[in-house]
Amino acid sequence: MTETFQTIPFSPIGTFHTAETQVPRHWSVSESIGTIILHKALLPGLKDIQPGDRIVVLFHFHQSEPFQPGHMIQHPPSSKLPTGVFSTCSPIRPNPLGLSVLKVQFVAGNRIQVEGIDMIDGTPILDIKPYVPVSEPQ
Amino acid sequence: MTETFQTIPFSPIGTFHTAETQVPRHWSVSESIGTIILHKALLPGLKDIQPGDRIVVLFHFHQSEPFQPGHMIQHPPSSKLPTGVFSTCSPIRPNPLGLSVLKVQFVAGNRIQVEGIDMIDGTPILDIKPYVPVSEPQ
Repeated sequence: MTETFQTIPFSPIGTFHTAETQVPRHWSVSESIGTIILHKALLPGLKDIQPGDRIVVLFHFHQSEPFQPGHMIQHPPSSKLPTGVFSTCSPIRPNPLGLSVLKVQFVAGNRIQVEGIDMIDGTPILDIKPYVPVSEPQ
Repeated sequence: MTETFQTIPFSPIGTFHTAETQVPRHWSVSESIGTIILHKALLPGLKDIQPGDRIVVLFHFHQSEPFQPGHMIQHPPSSKLPTGVFSTCSPIRPNPLGLSVLKVQFVAGNRIQVEGIDMIDGTPILDIKPYVPVSEPQ
């Protein structure tokens, strides 16, 4: 197995906006609110997103410092133990991809108001997917 | 709000391998098995992934056809109704990013054997995150 390091380019589908000025808490405990503003060209793809839906939002941790070998083990706020990066939600990771599960409050044109946000103002949004629960107990 | 179309480059953290020759069913119903082979340089980041864990795997739909306006509304196999792309798990989407929630069978060095896979052999892996359940009922 060769270690290939090709790059794959993605383009934002929109941008996230919030009045929050501090990084909110993790989406699983956040009560903060914000708005995804989708590029207008993609508006038809939103047609089935309804108030009350849970959506999975993938985004770019655009202000994170570059990942370096020293970030392989981190100390997440939720744990006192040093933890491997792939078992944390840290924004400093080999690919700065973020994931939040958010609740839709309403959709107005190309704007989706969402609750439970943990992204900062200006975050580039990469994808929106339906939330599919894991049916089997943990 | 200007519509910016900058690109953000990501690099695979490893590659997915499976003996499956057809695209397996969605991860929520798949019983198929495969292996994530992580780039060895990232091995320390795996240290807390344990058998039985659920992990969220983000990957590149590397063989999907390019997204075009005609893909804005699709007919997912699970629905008879035409559905907006952001409410589907279709691999043909503005950014070809995939997400699966998988169960770890075991970790051996830089190899993670996982169950419930719905990626095809050779899929570039972009991130591994802990699975965080949504606590509130749907």
